[in-house]
Parts: sequence; C-alpha cells; structure tokens
Amino acid sequence: MNSPVLSISRRTRQTPFTNRVTENGVKAYSVYNHMLLPTVFDSVEADYRHLKDHVQLWDVACERQVEVRGPDAARLLQMLTPRDLGTLQVGQCYYTPMVDETGGMLNDPLTLKLAADRYWISVADSDLLYWIKGLAYGLRLEVDVDEPDVSPLAIQGPKADDLAARVFGEAVRDIRFFRFARLPFEGHELIVARSGYSKQGGFEIYVDDSDLGEPLWDALFAAGADLGVRAGGPNLIERIEAGLLSYGNDMTRENTPHECGLGKFCQTQSAIGCVGRDALLRVAVEGPIRQIRSLSIAGEAVPPCTGPWTVFAGREKVGRVTSAAWSPDFETNVAIGMIRMTHWNPGTEVEVDTPDGMRPATIRDSSFI
Amino acid sequence: MNSPVLSISRRTRQTPFTNRVTENGVKAYSVYNHMLLPTVFDSVEADYRHLKDHVQLWDVACERQVEVRGPDAARLLQMLTPRDLGTLQVGQCYYTPMVDETGGMLNDPLTLKLAADRYWISVADSDLLYWIKGLAYGLRLEVDVDEPDVSPLAIQGPKADDLAARVFGEAVRDIRFFRFARLPFEGHELIVARSGYSKQGGFEIYVDDSDLGEPLWDALFAAGADLGVRAGGPNLIERIEAGLLSYGNDMTRENTPHECGLGKFCQTQSAIGCVGRDALLRVAVEGPIRQIRSLSIAGEAVPPCTGPWTVFAGREKVGRVTSAAWSPDFETNVAIGMIRMTHWNPGTEVEVDTPDGMRPATIRDSSFI
Repeated sequence: MNSPVLSISRRTRQTPFTNRVTENGVKAYSVYNHMLLPTVFDSVEADYRHLKDHVQLWDVACERQVEVRGPDAARLLQMLTPRDLGTLQVGQCYYTPMVDETGGMLNDPLTLKLAADRYWISVADSDLLYWIKGLAYGLRLEVDVDEPDVSPLAIQGPKADDLAARVFGEAVRDIRFFRFARLPFEGHELIVARSGYSKQGGFEIYVDDSDLGEPLWDALFAAGADLGVRAGGPNLIERIEAGLLSYGNDMTRENTPHECGLGKFCQTQSAIGCVGRDALLRVAVEGPIRQIRSLSIAGEAVPPCTGPWTVFAGREKVGRVTSAAWSPDFETNVAIGMIRMTHWNPGTEVEVDTPDGMRPATIRDSSFI
Repeated sequence: MNSPVLSISRRTRQTPFTNRVTENGVKAYSVYNHMLLPTVFDSVEADYRHLKDHVQLWDVACERQVEVRGPDAARLLQMLTPRDLGTLQVGQCYYTPMVDETGGMLNDPLTLKLAADRYWISVADSDLLYWIKGLAYGLRLEVDVDEPDVSPLAIQGPKADDLAARVFGEAVRDIRFFRFARLPFEGHELIVARSGYSKQGGFEIYVDDSDLGEPLWDALFAAGADLGVRAGGPNLIERIEAGLLSYGNDMTRENTPHECGLGKFCQTQSAIGCVGRDALLRVAVEGPIRQIRSLSIAGEAVPPCTGPWTVFAGREKVGRVTSAAWSPDFETNVAIGMIRMTHWNPGTEVEVDTPDGMRPATIRDSSFI
C-alpha cells in the first residue's frame, strides 16, 4: 500500500525556504502550525546518520512567533507560564510550558526576551496566538499581539558552529546555550540563537524578512559544501533518543507540565499571576501520578506510532507510548510514553501493545542521549 | 518529481473512521485542526464526477466541535460573531463568521444550538478553542469550554437522502436545510444535520462516541451498495464551483467578513456584545475595498494553487487568486480570489500570474453552481 501524499494548498502555508526544500528533493512533509514542515529528504535513517555526523539546514519556519509588545507584555507573559520569568534577561531564551487555568499544557514554546516590553514566543503546534489574544482582550491589557514575518532556519549537527561562523563570523561561537545575538547578514541584523530541536548542537536563525530566506539558505549551502551540508529536518529517531518532547504527540491539553517531566521549569510558588497557578500549586505538592519516561522496546523495528500504544504490566494498563522508532545506534526501538507511578521506576519491565503485537519493553532512567 | 507523502504521527490525529478510510484506498490527506482529512480516493476529477452523480461518505471528523455550556454561554457566543444569534433556535445551525477585536476573521464555523445554554461550534482550521477559552477566562464568564468526543461524518451527493433514510429512517427527509434532528442508531441518538461542504446536498452526522464510528460507516456502506456509495472528501473542484470558501485558503485573519462576501451574515448593529463590533460598524458603513469573487481562468488546467496568485489589470495589481482548479463540467479553470473594487464588476477582464505564466481571466457575478 502506498503512503498517502499531502494535499498542499495555500492553507498549508509555504515557507521562505520551500523552493529550496523542493529543489533538495523533500520526500515527506508534516503540517505544523498550518505550515509545511519538511521531515524526510533521503530516508529517516539516512537523514539521522547525516545529522549526527555532519551539519544540516532545517526549514523550521513553522515555528511561528507570537510577538507580544507593550506596557503589559511582561505581565501577560507571566500569566501564560508557571516558569518564573523574573530571571529572564534580554538576549536569553527560556523553554516555557504554557498552561490553561486547569494547568493543562497549551503549548511548550521557547520564549525570547527581545526587550523589557517585547517578546517572541516560538510556538509548537497549536494556535497559542488565539489564547494570548483572548486573554489580552478579556483582561484589557495594554499589549499588541501578532504573528510577525519571522521564519526560523535551523543549523543542526556537530559541524554547525563551523558552518555558522563562515556566514555570521566567529562571534557566533561565543553565543551560549539558549542565548541569542544579533548578527549581520547582507546588511540586515538577524537574531541567531544557540538552540534547536536536536541534541547535536546548533543554531536557530530568526529570519525576519521572507525575502532573505533564499539568500540565507544559498549562502549557508555555498559556505558548507566541504562540510557536507544537506537539507534536513527534525529527525524522529534522534529526537526520541534525545528525549525531546513533541506537543501533540507526547503531551496534550490533558497533561500538566509535571506529568511531562517539566516540573523543573515550573516555579509555581514565585510565578505569581500565572493563570494555571492554583491548579499547579496542588500538583506541585502532591506530585503527578503518571509521568513521561523513555523506554526501549524489544524486537524488530516497530511500525510508525500513529496513536498511543497501551502499556501493560500483566493485564493492568499502566501507560501509553506516544512516540517510537528504531534506533540504528542503540540497536533497539527507542520510545517515549506516559507511565503510571506504580511502574515508572527505571528497569521496570512492561509490555507495549503495538500494531505488530505485544512487545517487551523496559523503562529507562533517562533519555538515550 | 514525486509528491511528498504526509508524515503521520499521533499529532496528526487519526479519526474514528481512519481504518475504513485506509481500507478504501485513500490517496491523499490534508491536515486540518491537527487531524487527518482525506482529500483524494480515486483522483480529484473522478471523485468529483462520482460526488455529483451518486453519494459519498466523508470523514470530516476534523471539523472539531468546541462545546460551550453554562449560564453565560449565549452571551459568550454573541461576543464571538457579528451575526445576530438572537434568532438562532434550538435545533438550528447558523454559519457564523467569527472575528477578533479588529474584525479580522478567526474562523468561519457552523454554530449548532443544542439548548439555551449549550452550543457546538463546528470549526474550520484554526484553534478557535484557544480564543474562546482566553476570552472566557479573561472575562470570568460562567461557562465550560471544551472539545468533546464528536466526529462528524458527512453523507454528500444527490442520493444522500435515499442513503440516509435507509439507516436513520424516513424522518431524515424532513430535516430542513441547516436544521438538525436527533435520530436513533444502534440504541444511541445522533445529531443529524442537513448541511455539508458541497452543493450536492446531504447531511452531517455528529458521531459523539468514537466507538460508533466504524459501525456507522459500515451500516451506511452496506445500505448504499446499490446506490454506488463510495468514500470521498471535500472536493477541490466542486467546492470552488460552489463558491464555498475555505478558511486559511480564501480568507485569513487579514480579512473582514465583508471582504469575504459574508456581510449578509453580519447584523453588526444588533449583534451587541460582539468583540469586533466597533471595527465592523465602520466597515459596514463604508463597505470593503476588496471582496471575494469567483473567476474563470482561461487556457489549459492550471497547476495547484499553493499560494496566492497575483491578479493584474495591465501593470496594476488588483487582487489575488487563492483557490483554482480545472472544472470538467464548465470546461474552464474555476477560481476564487480577492479583487479590488476597481475591478470586481462581473465581466471585468483581468490577468492571473500563475506558475505556468500569465493567463486571461474573467470576474463572474456569482459562483459557478
């Protein structure tokens, strides 16, 4: 059976890099924030190997920005997240779980502080813009909230520093993790952050003018020819090995940050003003009764995980696997799932109900890489 | 060049009908409200021919419902739309443009009034849930707002009444346009509305329990064998012929309802409480300076419209085409676009800048069907 193709229309928005992505032979897309997200160029495994050994350009324009600016911007930002933003400095990025009034996850963006009264929220796959606009209107806050013309392009892989330095200069090497600098490119200043959705290292460049997309792509490709630069995208295998969660896959509005293992990003006591604070204060005291864990699933390569797979201990349902893939490096199936506290200790043996049948699996103490 | 396939994960949610859709050989999907939307089974043209001659089942589970219930439900609903909901009766559906405080379109759902204090909003492709939750929280309204387990299944085509009557009984024939009834199926009562995203007639069944999805699909297929029932989906050609707008394609937050030709659904004077009322009162008086029009584009079949195509009159930019397809029945390319008032009169000759080059086109007075 052939895999269904994606029907592309204006609604599945093109990005400033789509022409280049097409020229580089994109084989699969996902749709993310109503925008094309290239996911496969050669094969998932070949892309994975290349990402871990070389350097790739990723069209992650679908990481749309919500810009919040105005006198009430800082107050509104703190309403969105249980993370204490009092310590966030200009030039810094925070990973910020964002929750509704029940403490349910609405998104897990990176928040960039551009100025005391101006932020970009680099969102995962949900229209967080609508929640923020609704709150701002309902509470009559003095802010502007919008989606600017900003399209991130990621440079990821062990050779990312070398490639970025050739285009943005040596200063790029001094950018610390989750910090950003404004660096020149063809007469513009672009925000370059040391961040990205892999553990292979690299940068995200916030291209704030669509017309710069192709010139920047071309400059990076030209500069990186001898580094073996290729087009890539967030890689299913690598991100599961790295334990990087995916909103909509591993967590939804059903889950609290604590269930997602994001308690370390919640300073619920001091995050005064967070709309989910009351709900999360209770969770913070009692702790969650289920939590995200990495697992290894035995046997041959599992099929794609298109819906939760129930996790069993004997006949008891003790969790659900939400992401899984065969890892060539670890020679096992790597997986992420939500596991009940009765069975979440490292080394616990469970079974996973995959479409190919029941498989033995083991709970791990941490991610694979 | 091959068309990219869709990477399917839990995030691109499966529906209660996905197994059946797969068994029926789905060839293309779109992603809509973070959910799979089957778009092609045979070919776009073959599906179109069949839809116009027979009857199809459409998995439109991606038309997710936002349920609003509670003492402030009616008040909140009127905040969302410039359509006067004072006349909406229980058992009735209204097409409701929904706007932000600037009058920009956030969604164009169908609103179903289930009871005086309970509504379903059957949403197009944006997380309207987030906007409504934000407003409700910010304004401290007494409502619950959530996405229930409701997955619409559409029966569309000229034989839809016959097919529906075989499963739901003759009472289905008495349902008037944009009205709904509760009809029995296997011991449940399902909401059946005379509605759907085609002009071929038919129903949408609001399946409010995922476990009923396959039994209902199977019952309709079994009952419709001699009617030639097939799996289908919203058809690009037919919906353009019908002038049915698509949120994200033909209109975005940039547009007011009046620009979208939806002024007839705006009773802005009497829609007191609508958050976009102030902005739209001005628009209602002055009128829009550009508006949605149907067009016919000359020449061979156009390629897929994946982004706006600029419309020219001489060297002047006078609009943008946002949807287009070759129509076998009208033997022309049918299209929808936003045209400036200087050139929107029926019969105006313009040119459209397609990826295949400039094409002559004509503004129409109405949709094709």
